[in-house]
Amino acid sequence: MDLSTIIGICVAFGLMLMAILQGGPLGIFIDVPSLLIVVGGTLGNTLVHYPFADVFDALNVAKKTLLYKETSASELITQLMEFANKARKEGILALQGAMNEVEDEFLQKAMQMAVDGQEPATLRSMLATEVEYIEMRHSKGANIFVSIAAYSPAMGMVGTLIGLVQMLQNMSDPSSIGPAMAVALLTTFYGAVIANIFCSPMAGKLKNRSEGEILIKTLMIEGMQSILSGENPRIMEQKLHAFIAPKLRESTFNK
Amino acid sequence: MDLSTIIGICVAFGLMLMAILQGGPLGIFIDVPSLLIVVGGTLGNTLVHYPFADVFDALNVAKKTLLYKETSASELITQLMEFANKARKEGILALQGAMNEVEDEFLQKAMQMAVDGQEPATLRSMLATEVEYIEMRHSKGANIFVSIAAYSPAMGMVGTLIGLVQMLQNMSDPSSIGPAMAVALLTTFYGAVIANIFCSPMAGKLKNRSEGEILIKTLMIEGMQSILSGENPRIMEQKLHAFIAPKLRESTFNK
Amino acid sequence: MDLSTIIGICVAFGLMLMAILQGGPLGIFIDVPSLLIVVGGTLGNTLVHYPFADVFDALNVAKKTLLYKETSASELITQLMEFANKARKEGILALQGAMNEVEDEFLQKAMQMAVDGQEPATLRSMLATEVEYIEMRHSKGANIFVSIAAYSPAMGMVGTLIGLVQMLQNMSDPSSIGPAMAVALLTTFYGAVIANIFCSPMAGKLKNRSEGEILIKTLMIEGMQSILSGENPRIMEQKLHAFIAPKLRESTFNK
Amino acid sequence: MDLSTIIGICVAFGLMLMAILQGGPLGIFIDVPSLLIVVGGTLGNTLVHYPFADVFDALNVAKKTLLYKETSASELITQLMEFANKARKEGILALQGAMNEVEDEFLQKAMQMAVDGQEPATLRSMLATEVEYIEMRHSKGANIFVSIAAYSPAMGMVGTLIGLVQMLQNMSDPSSIGPAMAVALLTTFYGAVIANIFCSPMAGKLKNRSEGEILIKTLMIEGMQSILSGENPRIMEQKLHAFIAPKLRESTFNK
Amino acid sequence: MDLSTIIGICVAFGLMLMAILQGGPLGIFIDVPSLLIVVGGTLGNTLVHYPFADVFDALNVAKKTLLYKETSASELITQLMEFANKARKEGILALQGAMNEVEDEFLQKAMQMAVDGQEPATLRSMLATEVEYIEMRHSKGANIFVSIAAYSPAMGMVGTLIGLVQMLQNMSDPSSIGPAMAVALLTTFYGAVIANIFCSPMAGKLKNRSEGEILIKTLMIEGMQSILSGENPRIMEQKLHAFIAPKLRESTFNK
Repeated sequence: MDLSTIIGICVAFGLMLMAILQGGPLGIFIDVPSLLIVVGGTLGNTLVHYPFADVFDALNVAKKTLLYKETSASELITQLMEFANKARKEGILALQGAMNEVEDEFLQKAMQMAVDGQEPATLRSMLATEVEYIEMRHSKGANIFVSIAAYSPAMGMVGTLIGLVQMLQNMSDPSSIGPAMAVALLTTFYGAVIANIFCSPMAGKLKNRSEGEILIKTLMIEGMQSILSGENPRIMEQKLHAFIAPKLRESTFNK
Repeated sequence: MDLSTIIGICVAFGLMLMAILQGGPLGIFIDVPSLLIVVGGTLGNTLVHYPFADVFDALNVAKKTLLYKETSASELITQLMEFANKARKEGILALQGAMNEVEDEFLQKAMQMAVDGQEPATLRSMLATEVEYIEMRHSKGANIFVSIAAYSPAMGMVGTLIGLVQMLQNMSDPSSIGPAMAVALLTTFYGAVIANIFCSPMAGKLKNRSEGEILIKTLMIEGMQSILSGENPRIMEQKLHAFIAPKLRESTFNK
Repeated sequence: MDLSTIIGICVAFGLMLMAILQGGPLGIFIDVPSLLIVVGGTLGNTLVHYPFADVFDALNVAKKTLLYKETSASELITQLMEFANKARKEGILALQGAMNEVEDEFLQKAMQMAVDGQEPATLRSMLATEVEYIEMRHSKGANIFVSIAAYSPAMGMVGTLIGLVQMLQNMSDPSSIGPAMAVALLTTFYGAVIANIFCSPMAGKLKNRSEGEILIKTLMIEGMQSILSGENPRIMEQKLHAFIAPKLRESTFNK
Repeated sequence: MDLSTIIGICVAFGLMLMAILQGGPLGIFIDVPSLLIVVGGTLGNTLVHYPFADVFDALNVAKKTLLYKETSASELITQLMEFANKARKEGILALQGAMNEVEDEFLQKAMQMAVDGQEPATLRSMLATEVEYIEMRHSKGANIFVSIAAYSPAMGMVGTLIGLVQMLQNMSDPSSIGPAMAVALLTTFYGAVIANIFCSPMAGKLKNRSEGEILIKTLMIEGMQSILSGENPRIMEQKLHAFIAPKLRESTFNK
Repeated sequence: MDLSTIIGICVAFGLMLMAILQGGPLGIFIDVPSLLIVVGGTLGNTLVHYPFADVFDALNVAKKTLLYKETSASELITQLMEFANKARKEGILALQGAMNEVEDEFLQKAMQMAVDGQEPATLRSMLATEVEYIEMRHSKGANIFVSIAAYSPAMGMVGTLIGLVQMLQNMSDPSSIGPAMAVALLTTFYGAVIANIFCSPMAGKLKNRSEGEILIKTLMIEGMQSILSGENPRIMEQKLHAFIAPKLRESTFNK
């Protein structure tokens, strides 16, 4: 679903592999103890920093990122306008029926609260709290990737320091210095790859996704509050359009 | 249009080329695999971080930056004062006619809302939401350049590490060490050039432009609200002048 | 209790030791003066930065981190719902009896204030002040680890510079250069290990724990205020559920 | 006027020159192409980042920094107290006459607004907007120096990379390696000097100056609002003294 | 008085000296021109950044840090409770007498305002402004140390670059390379020591002290406002206890 993530990782990795293979065999870039110290050490740091459950959640979240279908803000506005018209013609209780077509749980909850006769202010404050805590959970997910992107180069440096110390203590055979230093640099290389090709862009994507989802949820809150307050549909549409880019605004009244 | 951007890039690039050519042929600074790993890898990272659409938007925004004509804050204030006088003499509906001379869509929208008889507070809150979300979209555009400026030196370092490992594994011929290391350093060089000569200053320019545009839109909101509230034109002018530097303030009353 | 912290430290340390032992004897990584300058110097810096008492508190806090049993947010909500039902049926004074089952001192205090007949607004503002200052004390604890993670690599660099200067002043015997530089690098190594394997992840964990505890205390405040205001239990439950992830929400009404 | 700025730059530069001359001729630190790439490249970046006008403003602002005479907060308070007494005895219109002695344009404007009969709340909100936008313009001036301090070491690194690549490609004559590398390092040196001896401290000074000026303007707003509200002079003095350090407070009542 | 600062500096310095002496004579770490460029250059930068007066203030503040006696928050609460009881029994004017026992000028001022019959809201807003500006002045003091900690390693790098360029231009005698490079590294060493052993921890201590003092002053404001409002002493004590750690709370009512 999320083509750009997959293409992006393939492009970055593919070009890196190409550059490696062009200069020599791939084998000299694979060293199991170096890999263990960077990957394992980073995993260890991450487990100290975050509880097990959060780390597994982060992996789930990353998987969802690749499969996630973004809701279109303009389609959501069209849907909310339909609900507004329905509520004006048939009363707020008519939304009960419309709830079945709605897939998003958050919108369902908002509609349920409207049907239950909550005050507009209560609806807004309860849903706003929920959005705030959704944002907090999202940012924890992204922060795990940010942390890994910080720990892996650090572990890479630790590994390189170990390699350098061993090499420097043992310089009797000059011909072995080059290869020993090459191996010492591998941990720095692994750390940089994990941080820069995997984790930093992934953390960025998760933050982007979170912002998109928060925008959608904010539109839902604004829309349901407008419906509940019986606001003029034209004004409501103008209000909701203020949240999105001008070129995405399609008025339901000009159709 | 935006001379300083074009001159700035030419100066920085020209001096760099000059320094390169003075020391030897340009050819030793061109290495296609190195270029591929840095440019392609950075592009890959960027596609993981941002969806396709956002990256294309960013390029569009960058193009617009070079062609953009900034609105003059003092001219806008003069125009708003004319509208205020017109509205005082002929009534708020007279702004309907003046809307045709207005090019800026945001000001048109504000005037339409005033003509439609919105409350000053509603006008302010709806337009303020719009400005807030314009700011968010602008800063996303600038952030893509900030991200590229962070990914390209990282990919440069990854490329240099690959080159160093290959060189160190293969030091039998001492005369090849220098050139091999020179090639390894090229990716770091490319990364530094992309980050520091292109992306960081461009991100800065986009942020500056965004601030300028937000100031203009804030003036529009303040002005239309004053007009709608029927505020004294002298006070309105003083209010608007508070947003700009003293030397740019030209009172319409002293003329 | 806190398995992930212990496992994480063991994994990171174990893999590092493995990598060291695979390349040679452990002995070459132990140098007492180097250790003294990094550990002692970092301790010295920390004592200048923080008073004795705060440093000891931080160690206590770290110990508590390993032994701490997190309160379950969903269990707390269930408990608060029971109190709400009790208060509705038997009056607010009935909470006096329920206070004995409560272990958490903060919740006890909130209940005592409710039983004492405080206004809901007073209860909220006093408890919110308390939460704010708890957060401040927690973040001081985490910041001590952040400071150590900043001072130890700096002391490592100071140590390495000392070693390098001494080595460079004394290069008559080429065979001693390697080992002397290896020893000089050890302080950098110690600094990196202290910062990255111990202190940074520990600071992260303390921040996570603090956030968890603040969430629990926020739920307590919200819940007691709802009870004190005699709010409808269904609404109260919806309000409290807004703070936690959807999959953790278990309504007491569907049972 | 601003002795500390001039002395500071002379001390830092003088000691640097002394250290250079003690170790050899000054000539080896002067290389025109290196200077061009760092100074010109940094200028190019700055022109991309900021429009022409802003860069010239920044130079003006820097010049003003050297010539600026700071207003004394305690003298201003004494002056405001005099105005307060005058206004109490002779009425607010008596300030019209006192306006001629006032040099500061901002204070003149505040007094004019008071004489014009503005409400205290209007006076505060309009002047507060003005202060907010003054602060924004000041911080843009300081930020240009911050940007230059970031671009110049980056251009220095680009220059050094160019020199290193050329040197490494051309190592046939070992005796030329040292001098070639020395030249390559010069761009890094220039970048560090521009950033650390000129721009960073200058940006700091501009920020300090801005804070001082904002404090003075805040005192003017508070003072004029007190006068306009006809507040008790003793209370007004206590209010204004709260903004300054105890040792600077000189009561006009104890005299 | 402030033992931890003195012990901390001695420990860090002592261990550094020990490490130096163990490896060779102290003399090789002393180079007057290097010292001049780092210390003098840093001083120069600082004088550009801050006016003379602020730098001297910072030294005074640092001296005070070593001699400062912290006020105990729990003793202050006990004292405020006594004042509350006194005011309830003998009227607010009875505080006039109690003022003589009070050493802290801020508390004296708060009591004077209470005795003078100020409104609780006026007292709070005036004292809150004062605390805000005290915080600003404190943070300026700490920021001077933060700036020095940033300038000294930068000047160290400038010095090392000067040394390296001179060494590289003059490599005819291989035996002089080592010592020349050792001297070049000394400026980096001095910069690191000034920044990491002196200034960073000192800036941290000043920030800690400021936070402690602000907490004490906040307690004074809250307490005097409670007394002035004639609040129930038990509630007042609960309010004040909310600011401090549970283990420090000693109720005056359980005695």
